Amino acid sequence: MTARELYQEIKRKKSCLCVGLDTDHHRIPDILRREPDPVFSFNKAIIDATHHLAVAFKPNLAFYEANGTAGWKSLEKTVDYIRSTDPSLFIISDAKRGDIGNTARQYALTFFVSLDFDAITLSPYMGRDAIEPFLGFTGKWVILLGLTSNPGAVDFQLQYMESGRYLYEEVIDRSKDWGTTDNIMYVVGATKSSHFQRIREIIPGHFLLVPGIGAQGGSLEEVLDYGSNDTGGLLVNSSRGIIYASSGPDFAGKAEAAASDIQRKMQNYFL
Amino acid sequence: MTARELYQEIKRKKSCLCVGLDTDHHRIPDILRREPDPVFSFNKAIIDATHHLAVAFKPNLAFYEANGTAGWKSLEKTVDYIRSTDPSLFIISDAKRGDIGNTARQYALTFFVSLDFDAITLSPYMGRDAIEPFLGFTGKWVILLGLTSNPGAVDFQLQYMESGRYLYEEVIDRSKDWGTTDNIMYVVGATKSSHFQRIREIIPGHFLLVPGIGAQGGSLEEVLDYGSNDTGGLLVNSSRGIIYASSGPDFAGKAEAAASDIQRKMQNYFL
Repeated sequence: MTARELYQEIKRKKSCLCVGLDTDHHRIPDILRREPDPVFSFNKAIIDATHHLAVAFKPNLAFYEANGTAGWKSLEKTVDYIRSTDPSLFIISDAKRGDIGNTARQYALTFFVSLDFDAITLSPYMGRDAIEPFLGFTGKWVILLGLTSNPGAVDFQLQYMESGRYLYEEVIDRSKDWGTTDNIMYVVGATKSSHFQRIREIIPGHFLLVPGIGAQGGSLEEVLDYGSNDTGGLLVNSSRGIIYASSGPDFAGKAEAAASDIQRKMQNYFL
Repeated sequence: MTARELYQEIKRKKSCLCVGLDTDHHRIPDILRREPDPVFSFNKAIIDATHHLAVAFKPNLAFYEANGTAGWKSLEKTVDYIRSTDPSLFIISDAKRGDIGNTARQYALTFFVSLDFDAITLSPYMGRDAIEPFLGFTGKWVILLGLTSNPGAVDFQLQYMESGRYLYEEVIDRSKDWGTTDNIMYVVGATKSSHFQRIREIIPGHFLLVPGIGAQGGSLEEVLDYGSNDTGGLLVNSSRGIIYASSGPDFAGKAEAAASDIQRKMQNYFL
């Protein structure tokens, strides 16, 4: 998918919502526990309830790998189900991998070819040759960690470099030319909205994937005000606030309501 | 396993060799292709041929995930087989993950409990709260990326901070107090032996996991001279140089010979 196609979807749905499928098998509602694959049944219900309000879904790999081979099966079925529901949905593998050469190439084949994800999150620490193997797949994206929304962002990302800039600014500035606005986007935490202006000076045109609204406390309005650009420029993720809106039999309806609440706040930004 | 126990094993075997199981299913020798699980059969033969010469094995997760659910099954069987061969072998999950809070906790449970690895490689970019969830498991280790052996190390790790030190030095210095010499070690690339002295000034007592000898061109002798300390302090990894020493039916014998060649160079350092 190109950046332009992604923006078309955002305008069509008046939404830049990404639903994070951080599906913890300990938190599956009781009514699904006797299903043959409770994680997939849960995801299916969430996808059915929210796909018209979202442009992207983001399974977090940790939660699937925690179930070993059964978890990988749930993941494969989830990706297939999203594709069959709406081929224009953007599917992100939240993997936060980062490895070099032949290893990176293996990951790229796994996530882009075997599993047909549109994008993968990656850590920049190992540098250019850990990222490049992912950039040669037409229509596929790298989403590089820029400034994350967790407290540990201060440990390294918000340390000053010799240049006088933060590490995260150096990361974004150096990496932006490894690809294009059609195959690199950046993770930027919503709890750091004061940094959006610095980032937009460096990369006015790139898409940003923004976690941290809702459960992590970021302000959606600030993100939309400071992060969006004239070609969309944003995917805003919510995971727990949507998928765990209720733990009862009404979980899907409550997930739809939570997603709808976010979409309503977004709609005037994408007319 | 404690650092002391690991050092005992190093002295017993006169070896700090770690065999990297970067098992690419495209490179399995023809004679194993009809086995029900060729990747596991290959690993089993390599483990049988080298376990007496090595103190550690390091499956690289990328190669297993590339095979989806079948790959996870091969991984599980490989870990079980290493354990049953010699319970004192140190088993490293080369995963290079890095995520926060609940997600990190999921990864820790997957790799330390479900799969019974002794250690996992992690990226430091997200900071302390991405690492801490892994540090609460008795006898289990975090192996943090410090200075990697790939060309991309110059992009960020070898950039100067405001402090006048390289980023990798800040990473090691800040993170060393998140745990102890019994649960944190660092990845330090062998192609950067001139940096070992800087690193040993910051962390004289920690173990270092050193990739990059052999196929990546680092010098084993320099690593042993500059990286070892009086409690061992080193695990030196070789992957392709051992497991792909031959692609013919003699692959296991050639792997043993390659491992033996490395062990012989190590033995005088651990008397």
